[in-house]
Amino acid sequence: MTTSSNLDVFLTPLSIALIGASRTPGKVGYSMLENIRKSFTGPIYPINPEATEIGGLNAFPSITDVPEPVDLAIIAVKAEIVPIVLDECIKKKVRAVIVISAGFSEIGNKKGEEELQNMIKGKNVRLLGPNCLGVFTKNIDTLFLPREKLKRPSDGSISFLTQSGAVGATILDLIGFEGVGISKFISYGNAADVNELEILSYLGKDMATRAIAMYVETIHDGPEFIKIASKITPIKPIVALKAGKSEKGAEAVLSHTGHMAGPAQVYSAAFKQSGIIEAQTTQDLFDFAKALSSQPPLRNGRIAVITNGGGFGILAADAASRAGLELPELSNETVKALKNVIPDYAVPKNPVDLTGDANAERYESALKAVASDKNIEGILVIPLVQTPELDEKIVDVLRDAKIYGKSIVACMMGGEYTMKHARRLEAFGIPVYDMPERAVKALAALRDYGRIVAPPAPEKVEEKIVKKAKKLLAKKAKKAAKKPVKKKKR
Amino acid sequence: MTTSSNLDVFLTPLSIALIGASRTPGKVGYSMLENIRKSFTGPIYPINPEATEIGGLNAFPSITDVPEPVDLAIIAVKAEIVPIVLDECIKKKVRAVIVISAGFSEIGNKKGEEELQNMIKGKNVRLLGPNCLGVFTKNIDTLFLPREKLKRPSDGSISFLTQSGAVGATILDLIGFEGVGISKFISYGNAADVNELEILSYLGKDMATRAIAMYVETIHDGPEFIKIASKITPIKPIVALKAGKSEKGAEAVLSHTGHMAGPAQVYSAAFKQSGIIEAQTTQDLFDFAKALSSQPPLRNGRIAVITNGGGFGILAADAASRAGLELPELSNETVKALKNVIPDYAVPKNPVDLTGDANAERYESALKAVASDKNIEGILVIPLVQTPELDEKIVDVLRDAKIYGKSIVACMMGGEYTMKHARRLEAFGIPVYDMPERAVKALAALRDYGRIVAPPAPEKVEEKIVKKAKKLLAKKAKKAAKKPVKKKKR
Repeated sequence: MTTSSNLDVFLTPLSIALIGASRTPGKVGYSMLENIRKSFTGPIYPINPEATEIGGLNAFPSITDVPEPVDLAIIAVKAEIVPIVLDECIKKKVRAVIVISAGFSEIGNKKGEEELQNMIKGKNVRLLGPNCLGVFTKNIDTLFLPREKLKRPSDGSISFLTQSGAVGATILDLIGFEGVGISKFISYGNAADVNELEILSYLGKDMATRAIAMYVETIHDGPEFIKIASKITPIKPIVALKAGKSEKGAEAVLSHTGHMAGPAQVYSAAFKQSGIIEAQTTQDLFDFAKALSSQPPLRNGRIAVITNGGGFGILAADAASRAGLELPELSNETVKALKNVIPDYAVPKNPVDLTGDANAERYESALKAVASDKNIEGILVIPLVQTPELDEKIVDVLRDAKIYGKSIVACMMGGEYTMKHARRLEAFGIPVYDMPERAVKALAALRDYGRIVAPPAPEKVEEKIVKKAKKLLAKKAKKAAKKPVKKKKR
Repeated sequence: MTTSSNLDVFLTPLSIALIGASRTPGKVGYSMLENIRKSFTGPIYPINPEATEIGGLNAFPSITDVPEPVDLAIIAVKAEIVPIVLDECIKKKVRAVIVISAGFSEIGNKKGEEELQNMIKGKNVRLLGPNCLGVFTKNIDTLFLPREKLKRPSDGSISFLTQSGAVGATILDLIGFEGVGISKFISYGNAADVNELEILSYLGKDMATRAIAMYVETIHDGPEFIKIASKITPIKPIVALKAGKSEKGAEAVLSHTGHMAGPAQVYSAAFKQSGIIEAQTTQDLFDFAKALSSQPPLRNGRIAVITNGGGFGILAADAASRAGLELPELSNETVKALKNVIPDYAVPKNPVDLTGDANAERYESALKAVASDKNIEGILVIPLVQTPELDEKIVDVLRDAKIYGKSIVACMMGGEYTMKHARRLEAFGIPVYDMPERAVKALAALRDYGRIVAPPAPEKVEEKIVKKAKKLLAKKAKKAAKKPVKKKKR
C-alpha cells in the first residue's frame, strides 16, 4: 500500500467477489472474470444464482453465501437489481463496491442513484461508479474489455482517472500499444460516492504516480478541486482534458452522466489557477502526460532540434515558434564541436541537420555537444531511422543522453520498423511522438509546467536587471541632455 | 500512360540505368538497386566502374557502355562526379535523369547546380532533383530507404509531391502502415529543372490521382502557381503543407534547399486564392488528403456523430464546434427510427450514443436512420470495437454505408486489434483516424473543399430568399406603420 487513504481497498483488496459473473463468452461478466483472474492473485468469488462453478472457481448464488470474508465486491448486473445485491454486500460487510452497471443518473434515473447513496450512508463501505469500468493496475484489472481486443499497458508512472470508461479504456489501449506504462487507472463514472476530488487527492499522495492524467466532464466542487489540485501540482504534474466545452458537447454531457458541464472558461480558469496543464485534445492528454512523467520541466523554453531529415528541422522550428518555444543560437563551443561531427558542407545551426547519411555515432557526438550548451534546456531529437546508415544503436544513444540531465523528447515517424524502435525508446523513459508538431507541443507542456514549479531562471533575472539598469542609465542620459537646453532657454 | 506530359518518362520509363549502383549492403546504391528491382519490370543497368556484375545483373563502367538504349538514368554518386556522369547520360541520349545526390544549392553550391542546369539546356532531357528521393509508384521505386525499414504503401488514389525527401518518405511509411494507398510519390528536392509547378500540373491531369498532397518549402513562381492550382482545385482537391513559416523555420529552409521561404501570410493567401486546403501540421496533410480523395465534399458542414462510447460523442461535439461544423437536431423520422434501435434508457440525440453494448446490427440500423436524414450531410462514426459485443462485422457495416452517398469518416482508437479493423476499413475507402479530433478536422477539410467546388446548398439559398423576403415585408410594414404618423404630422 502506497498511502493510507481508504481508496487502497479498490486497488489492493485482499479478496474479490464478482456479482454477475458469467460463463458465456462475449458477456461482460465473462470477460471481467477472465481479466480479474489474469491480474489478481487473491481469492476470487464468482456470484451467479444459476451456477455452482465458473471456470473452475466455486460460484455462489449470493455474496452472503461466501464462507470467507470479501474485501471488494464488483457489481455487474442490471440496474434494477443493483440495490438488492448492494444490500447483500453491506450485510456481508465488504469494504468496497465497484458498480459497473449503467442505468442511473446518466439516463435521468437520479432516484436510482440516490438510493445507492442512501444505502451506503453511515456504513463502512465505499462505492466506485455506477456506470464505470472500475480499476486497472498491474495487480487488479476489473475492465470488461477482453484482453485480446484491448491490450493492457505495462506498469508505469502515469496514473489516469477518467469519468468516461470508453474514452479511458481506448486511451489505455493506444498508449499500451505505444509502450507507455500506467501505474493506476481509475474509471469512476457517475461518482455517486468516490469522486474525482478524492481520487485526485489519493493519487497526489501515491508514491508510484509521477504524473496524473484526467479526463473529466464535470467537477463536483470547484473550490475544493482547486484546493486539492493546487497542493499536488507543485509536486507532480496534472494534465486534464475537459470534455463538453462546446454547447453541443455540454448537452451530450448531460445525457452521458446526468451532470451539467458548466461553462468552458470556468474550467480553463480553474485549471490555470491550480497549476494544471490543460489538454485541448485527446491526443494532448497522454502526449503531455508522458513527457511530464519522465522529463524535467523547462524553465525558459529554450530548445534545440537535432535531426537527420532537414525538413523535420523546419517543421519543428515552425511548431516551436507557434508554441512560444525558443530555438536559441548555439554557443561557439557547440558550433565548434558540431563542425567536427557533421559533413563539411552542412551548417551547424539550430535546428541541427546532421544530414541524411548520419549514423548513431554522429547523433551521439551531436547530442553531447548540444546537451553541453548552456543556452539549451530541452532537446527534440528526430531520428529518421529508415535511412540505410542509421541502425538500432540510435535507441541506446538516446537512452544514454539522459545523463546530461536535460529534457529530451523524440519524434520517430514511420511504420512498423520505426514503431519498434520507438517502443524500445519509450520503455527507457524517453517520450516518443510520431509527428514533429506533437513532440514540440509536449516540450511546450514541459515549459508550462516549468512555469508552475520552477523559479524564474537566473539568466532571465540577470537580463532583467541589466535591462532595468540600461533603462535607468538612458533616462539619466536623457535628463542630462535636456538640462543644457533648459539652460539655454534661460 | 495517363497523360501526354513529358514527366511520364520519370514514372513509366522503358529502361533504367542506376549510376552508383553498389553491391555493399547498407549503401544507398545497394538499397536503391534492390528497390528498383522489386518494382520495375523493364531492363535495369547498374553502372559501377569497379564491377561487371551486381546481384546477377550485368554492370557497366559507364552508361555509355550500355549496349541498349536507356530511358531513365538515376544518379547516386558524390556531388562533384555528378556533372561527369550527367554528361555521359546526355551522350547516351537518355530522356530523363533523377539526381539523388545532395551537395548543391542546399549547401550554398549554387554554381554546381547551375552547371547541371546549363548542361541540360537545349537538350532533350529532363532532370528531377538534385537532392531528392526520386519517385515511387507501384511500378517504379527509386527510394533508397530499405523496404524492411520503410514499408511501401499500396496503390491508391492520392499523389504526393514533396520538396523534402525525409518528410515525404516517412509520411509514406506511416500512411503505408495505416493502409492508405498512394498513386504517385514524387520527391523533387532542389528543383533544378522539374519543379513543383510542372509536377502539380501533371498530377492535375493524371486520371489515377484523385487528390494531391504537397509538402513545400518554397514556391518558384507565385502567380504561375496560383494559375495552375486554380485550374486543378475545382476538379480535384489539393492539400498543402508549407514548411518554414516561422523565422527560424525560414532560416532552416535557406540552409536546406538554398531558397528563401518567403513570408507565411503570402503562402496562406496564395493557397486560399487557389482553392488549396492548407494543412497546418504534418498530421493534417494526410488526414485531409485521405478524406478528400475518398469522400464527397460537404456543402454546409452539417454532421452527425454515431458512437457506442458516450465520451467520444462529447469530444467530437467539442471538436466540431471548434471547427465550425454543425451538429443539427435530428429529424422526427430519424428520432423515431433511432428509438427502435437504441435501448429504452438512451436518448436519440446528435451525437448519437448507441451505448456501450451496441453491436454491429445496432450500428447498421442507426447509420441507415441517420444517413436518411435530410439535415445530415456527413457522418462521423466512432466504433469502440474493444467492447465484447462489437465484432468485425462493424467494418462491413461501415463499408456498406457508402451506398447512402453521404460523407463518412471513422474514428477507431486503440491498439493492434483496433488498428487491424481500421486498416480493413481504410482499404474499403473509408478514412479512419485514431482520435475524434483528427476525424472532425478531416470533416472540416471536406467542408472547406465543399466551399470551393459546390454551389451554395439549395436549403441555404431558400433560407436566404425567405430571410430577404421577411426583411422586405418587415420594411414594408415599418413604412406602412410610419405613414399614418407622417399623415398625423401633416
